[in-house]
Amino acid sequence: MLQAKSCSDSLAVKTTQVFPPDTNIHGTLFGGRLLAHIDDVASIAAIKHARQPVVTASTDSVDFLAPVKVGHSITIEAFVTWTHRTSMEVFAKVITENLLTEEKRVCNTAFLTFVAIDETGRPVPVPTVYPETELEKKLFESGSIRAQQRKDRKTRS
Amino acid sequence: MLQAKSCSDSLAVKTTQVFPPDTNIHGTLFGGRLLAHIDDVASIAAIKHARQPVVTASTDSVDFLAPVKVGHSITIEAFVTWTHRTSMEVFAKVITENLLTEEKRVCNTAFLTFVAIDETGRPVPVPTVYPETELEKKLFESGSIRAQQRKDRKTRS
Amino acid sequence: MLQAKSCSDSLAVKTTQVFPPDTNIHGTLFGGRLLAHIDDVASIAAIKHARQPVVTASTDSVDFLAPVKVGHSITIEAFVTWTHRTSMEVFAKVITENLLTEEKRVCNTAFLTFVAIDETGRPVPVPTVYPETELEKKLFESGSIRAQQRKDRKTRS
Amino acid sequence: MLQAKSCSDSLAVKTTQVFPPDTNIHGTLFGGRLLAHIDDVASIAAIKHARQPVVTASTDSVDFLAPVKVGHSITIEAFVTWTHRTSMEVFAKVITENLLTEEKRVCNTAFLTFVAIDETGRPVPVPTVYPETELEKKLFESGSIRAQQRKDRKTRS
Amino acid sequence: MLQAKSCSDSLAVKTTQVFPPDTNIHGTLFGGRLLAHIDDVASIAAIKHARQPVVTASTDSVDFLAPVKVGHSITIEAFVTWTHRTSMEVFAKVITENLLTEEKRVCNTAFLTFVAIDETGRPVPVPTVYPETELEKKLFESGSIRAQQRKDRKTRS
Amino acid sequence: MLQAKSCSDSLAVKTTQVFPPDTNIHGTLFGGRLLAHIDDVASIAAIKHARQPVVTASTDSVDFLAPVKVGHSITIEAFVTWTHRTSMEVFAKVITENLLTEEKRVCNTAFLTFVAIDETGRPVPVPTVYPETELEKKLFESGSIRAQQRKDRKTRS
Ligand SMILES: CC(C)(COP(=O)(O)OP(=O)(O)OC[C@H]1O[C@@H](n2cnc3c(N)ncnc32)[C@H](O)[C@@H]1OP(=O)(O)O)[C@@H](O)C(=O)NCCC(=O)NCCS
Ligand SMILES: CC(C)(COP(=O)(O)OP(=O)(O)OC[C@H]1O[C@@H](n2cnc3c(N)ncnc32)[C@H](O)[C@@H]1OP(=O)(O)O)[C@@H](O)C(=O)NCCC(=O)NCCS
Ligand SMILES: CC(C)(COP(=O)(O)OP(=O)(O)OC[C@H]1O[C@@H](n2cnc3c(N)ncnc32)[C@H](O)[C@@H]1OP(=O)(O)O)[C@@H](O)C(=O)NCCC(=O)NCCS
Ligand SMILES: CC(C)(COP(=O)(O)OP(=O)(O)OC[C@H]1O[C@@H](n2cnc3c(N)ncnc32)[C@H](O)[C@@H]1OP(=O)(O)O)[C@@H](O)C(=O)NCCC(=O)NCCS
Repeated sequence: MLQAKSCSDSLAVKTTQVFPPDTNIHGTLFGGRLLAHIDDVASIAAIKHARQPVVTASTDSVDFLAPVKVGHSITIEAFVTWTHRTSMEVFAKVITENLLTEEKRVCNTAFLTFVAIDETGRPVPVPTVYPETELEKKLFESGSIRAQQRKDRKTRS
Repeated sequence: MLQAKSCSDSLAVKTTQVFPPDTNIHGTLFGGRLLAHIDDVASIAAIKHARQPVVTASTDSVDFLAPVKVGHSITIEAFVTWTHRTSMEVFAKVITENLLTEEKRVCNTAFLTFVAIDETGRPVPVPTVYPETELEKKLFESGSIRAQQRKDRKTRS
Repeated sequence: MLQAKSCSDSLAVKTTQVFPPDTNIHGTLFGGRLLAHIDDVASIAAIKHARQPVVTASTDSVDFLAPVKVGHSITIEAFVTWTHRTSMEVFAKVITENLLTEEKRVCNTAFLTFVAIDETGRPVPVPTVYPETELEKKLFESGSIRAQQRKDRKTRS
Repeated sequence: MLQAKSCSDSLAVKTTQVFPPDTNIHGTLFGGRLLAHIDDVASIAAIKHARQPVVTASTDSVDFLAPVKVGHSITIEAFVTWTHRTSMEVFAKVITENLLTEEKRVCNTAFLTFVAIDETGRPVPVPTVYPETELEKKLFESGSIRAQQRKDRKTRS
Repeated sequence: MLQAKSCSDSLAVKTTQVFPPDTNIHGTLFGGRLLAHIDDVASIAAIKHARQPVVTASTDSVDFLAPVKVGHSITIEAFVTWTHRTSMEVFAKVITENLLTEEKRVCNTAFLTFVAIDETGRPVPVPTVYPETELEKKLFESGSIRAQQRKDRKTRS
Repeated sequence: MLQAKSCSDSLAVKTTQVFPPDTNIHGTLFGGRLLAHIDDVASIAAIKHARQPVVTASTDSVDFLAPVKVGHSITIEAFVTWTHRTSMEVFAKVITENLLTEEKRVCNTAFLTFVAIDETGRPVPVPTVYPETELEKKLFESGSIRAQQRKDRKTRS
């Protein structure tokens, strides 16, 4: 059996500036660009947990709470919160900072699910994860509920 | 009052090939890249409905049902399905096609919410939408339920 | 013999917004960027007709009739109009729309020739095409004249 | 009156490697990408002649004579060959080189027309050009014929 | 006078995967792409220290100690090590990780100098920095020597 | 033994415009972007000398002497100045031009070292280089001193 790993073992962090090509006429970041950044970082967290290639199976709903301005930075933190046989849930949190005024805001949070695959693209088992901090414990415990909701919604659609 | 518009008035379609830079080691499209494409097309649909600049307020959950290979095409169709005062729900459907074999698959479907804004970034009213086809009617009628679910989930988080 | 196909069988449509990175100091689209978009869509049309990989053999002259502003959309429609043994002529039409005012303009039209190739890069036969609408018939009938002009100009140069 | 300039005063040269993101499944450069490179270099030549911002008014037909492989270099040379009141014809020549074997091939040649514009986008006069070498003289002398052909074709279409 | 800040106040971290478009034929990262990543992260560190816009004044020599493969991750950590009146030295360290095997290597280290500027592009004063850890102290103490070497080499060239 | 080559045999030149996506809020080029351009051109010079694939081994320090504005052009010239067994030193010079006013400035100069490699990534011998002009002779003669400095600095770090 694969050795269990802690949530923090998979932590990946990415800070980057928002550049002009990623913004609309109002000079704020496109939602789709942010989702692409989140997917990048979250997939690194998933690979670090599984030590296998992974593919994105789903993203849960995402609320964009605040616009992100050109020149500001975004910091995305992502780690594995819950696992099943071959799938892993990753929690990602995006904080935007006005680098000149130090003002920070939570831009959004997201849950993504990744599946580990082998060379032929077939799902392979992943280690289990164990939480350590309060936040990790809360997310770990509610993980199976969210997994059930994903199953339900996929069946419905 | 603003003149109501049909769902099909806002229809936007984008077909593009999957190029090597958008793919991972297995030669399949990154989930995040696809989300960025969806956001692009869906926002065009929202702007066509509102004839105002828009921002992405949220995306509902998205299931990635099939990997998209390099060289294949993706076709994204998006139109407004439901509106409230300043917000619009857009339905997007992604079909991937192996251009050599003609094999097509639904890659995923997604609901995004956009809010129309003025120059200062403040929400402004949008026209109402009316459905015409069976699919449009079904999506229109279930629109208020999904809107309520979004409100609930935003409050909870 | 390969089964003939209609012009509309190969139709490919791409709507996209003009983003800041694609524009010059005046905030209008670079001619070269538009040509790259046209080549992308036209090649999808050619592949859909041939169901083979293709390469661009030539583009006929292109007049840029109107500047395309950042934030506006461009819609490119392309379909196969005429075929010979291994080559296909594709007609592409670009319409730009000011999404806020609904004002639309034909930005340009273009004829490109693609050649279907096998794995070794050698030309392979393509199906013939038959026109159905008035526009398709007009373009189909004048196809052989344009093909002759391309041969003449290639010999001369 | 503006001071006449030689063809070579506007010469612009760009050598670059062909990178994986610019290539198709066969590892050869997309036609559209090459056209975008040509437009970039040719517009520098036009700006150097006019010392004004310019827009691309048209490209004449382009034949792609040889595929360009990933890792090979392309060298684009462009200079102004002929001018009228506000428009300039630019000749561009693309040579591809297999950097490992030193084998070089003319990939294609192209004529583009640029128009100098002021801040409001209105055409402004450009200096006249005078040829010095044999090639420049040949291109300069045939310039007015090509300009007439462009007028004819624009009227027809 | 501006309030002094610790080295760790300016720490910026960026983890990202190496994608195919950033690699050469051997599937390894271009040196120039890595330098662009380093400049991005190091400039965030400098802005966090100065809370002013900054420009890159120089990079010291950089040795590329290990090739970075496609699919591997790079983690860049950067913080301010030394300041003068308007200039800041930033130390950046790049670690590459084979995400499947967990093997990590120091890819390179670099010193960059940034200058804080106002709206007109003129240098403006920055806070002083104080070191806390052993590494920070070592780098802080040798900072003035490196600054002198930069002055000498700039005068010589 | 491999046939010696002149410095000018490896000369590579790239002129390009600075586009909005490559610039910061002040509309000036990022240092990291310029370094990426330099690496591209310098590696072409190295490949032309070695007629082998190459990797970047190091860059010496670079001073950014002048900001580069959007819409201006940069011209990078690079050639091999000195060789050892498998390594080559390349000198690169960047000149920026305000295309509207003809004002030119040396933006920076840089020395990069490349190593020729075979398919397995192992260093392979390169031809020797001989200088012809005054500048080439000066750079060639000081080449071994700079090589020694690189060795010293790599040992120290
Ligand atoms: C979307 C936004 C303008 C809403 O602002 P707000 O202050 O919440 O405005 P209001 O409370 O007046 O709500 C305006 C509308 O948005 C809707 N809305 C707000 N948040 C929403 C969400 N997460 N999902 C769906 N709809 C939402 C409200 O229901 C309301 O709709 P209605 O007018 O049709 O009834 C604001 O949250 C914002 O700017 N977010 C960032 C948008 C962005 O930049 N996206 C890309 C991020 S990278
Ligand atoms: C090019 C443009 C400025 C010409 O405007 P216009 O109203 O036709 O101007 P005019 O009739 O006064 O013509 C100005 C010059 O352009 C030339 N011109 C116009 N269309 C042309 C074409 N298709 N091919 C070549 N030259 C052309 C005219 O011959 C005239 O030349 P001259 O002054 O040397 O005699 C205008 O058509 C335009 O803005 N087009 C879009 C340019 C662009 O944005 N390109 C990129 C698109 S993605
Ligand atoms: C297009 C290409 C395959 C043609 O090869 P070829 O050796 O000339 O082949 P052939 O002479 O057998 O011609 C094959 C077909 O191409 C057509 N063709 C060749 N050059 C053409 C041109 N410039 N314009 C239009 N059609 C052309 C021929 O008419 C012939 O058509 P048909 O079979 O329908 O009668 C070859 O020139 C090539 O590989 N070019 C580069 C393509 C490329 O990489 N484009 C992007 C460059 S960045
Ligand atoms: C960096 C720059 C603002 C310095 O301007 P300047 O006129 O030399 O200003 P000063 O002589 O007053 O020097 C200001 C500070 O910069 C430092 N500086 C200048 N050149 C430097 C270099 N090459 N390396 C390190 N520090 C440097 C000075 O030591 C001084 O530091 P201090 O105030 O802490 O003592 C100016 O050279 C510039 O704009 N360069 C281009 C920056 C850029 O655009 N980079 C990206 C290029 S693609």
